[in-house]
Amino acid sequence: MTPANFSHVPLDKSYRLLNHGPTVLVSARHGGVTDVMAAAWACVLDYGQTPRVTVVLDKATHTRELIEASGAFALQLPTRAQLALTVGVGTDSLRTMPDKLVRHGVQLFEAPLGEVPLVAGCVGWLACRLRPEPHNQQAYDLFIGDVVGAWADERVFRAGRWQFDAAPDELRTLHHVAGGQFFVTGAAVQA
Amino acid sequence: MTPANFSHVPLDKSYRLLNHGPTVLVSARHGGVTDVMAAAWACVLDYGQTPRVTVVLDKATHTRELIEASGAFALQLPTRAQLALTVGVGTDSLRTMPDKLVRHGVQLFEAPLGEVPLVAGCVGWLACRLRPEPHNQQAYDLFIGDVVGAWADERVFRAGRWQFDAAPDELRTLHHVAGGQFFVTGAAVQA
Repeated sequence: MTPANFSHVPLDKSYRLLNHGPTVLVSARHGGVTDVMAAAWACVLDYGQTPRVTVVLDKATHTRELIEASGAFALQLPTRAQLALTVGVGTDSLRTMPDKLVRHGVQLFEAPLGEVPLVAGCVGWLACRLRPEPHNQQAYDLFIGDVVGAWADERVFRAGRWQFDAAPDELRTLHHVAGGQFFVTGAAVQA
Repeated sequence: MTPANFSHVPLDKSYRLLNHGPTVLVSARHGGVTDVMAAAWACVLDYGQTPRVTVVLDKATHTRELIEASGAFALQLPTRAQLALTVGVGTDSLRTMPDKLVRHGVQLFEAPLGEVPLVAGCVGWLACRLRPEPHNQQAYDLFIGDVVGAWADERVFRAGRWQFDAAPDELRTLHHVAGGQFFVTGAAVQA
């Protein structure tokens, strides 16, 4: 079921979901198998009418295999309330823990585009099609995606802007440093 | 002159300076000309003994030209106190404003490695050598750098960890959203 407060973000504003550098969850599905992993190394690559993202996916991850097979993935922004979930799906592998998603409380729903399941409780979602770049993928574990759909939780992202200061702190996004140490997104400042 | 509190960060910990997704300043020098620009699209690409970073540099920027000519650049993390400086060097070009750096209060000092001047007042610095990838540079404006030196302001980064909560808020790093709207790095949370 689509979460309450799930609202469409125009493609030309979609980079704003990722521009502040949060840690993301990466989801993908192929052959009936869905996996979700955490990634701190995700970044905007382009905006405007051709929004693109990069994400680094280690060869050991099962999610990477699903992305290479299906050609699609989603990036989504977990919140402070999802700290344990984020560390959990970033630590355990579906290869050795088949009930990984259930165990870490991941609830999925279908994106309006239908290609990739999305994680409930996040506050921003970017559905992406893989742009095959074999050299980058092999040499650097670097994947490029064309953003084809974007949505946000309207309690914290409205009119093309994050509004964290007006919402509960539990809805703030996360920035991983190392070893389970994160910072939440802090106060807004305007130049 | 090297700033007070400027301290060496081991290469295998250098990714932690950038892992939380802050906006950076990019500096470069060639033929006696130095430029500095702001970039929100910078990301860790690898860690361990071969730390690498990515940064997206528009073809219109003069700093990009200096990097392509010299093969070197530095990424550094500006603070809340440098908000106006960050927006200034991200808005104005050396092409049309030859005194851009002076006008925006940029003070430079030499990195211990000597290749690229660094910006004083920042709290983390990564000296990088360009890893030439012509296809990425042309098609995506995407540049890859091997990190060859790293330093941090020990008031906020000690023993391999950011310690923002124990320092003045003016030393927190910045995360750009759009149009001069930033978030500062917020409270630390541990999983």
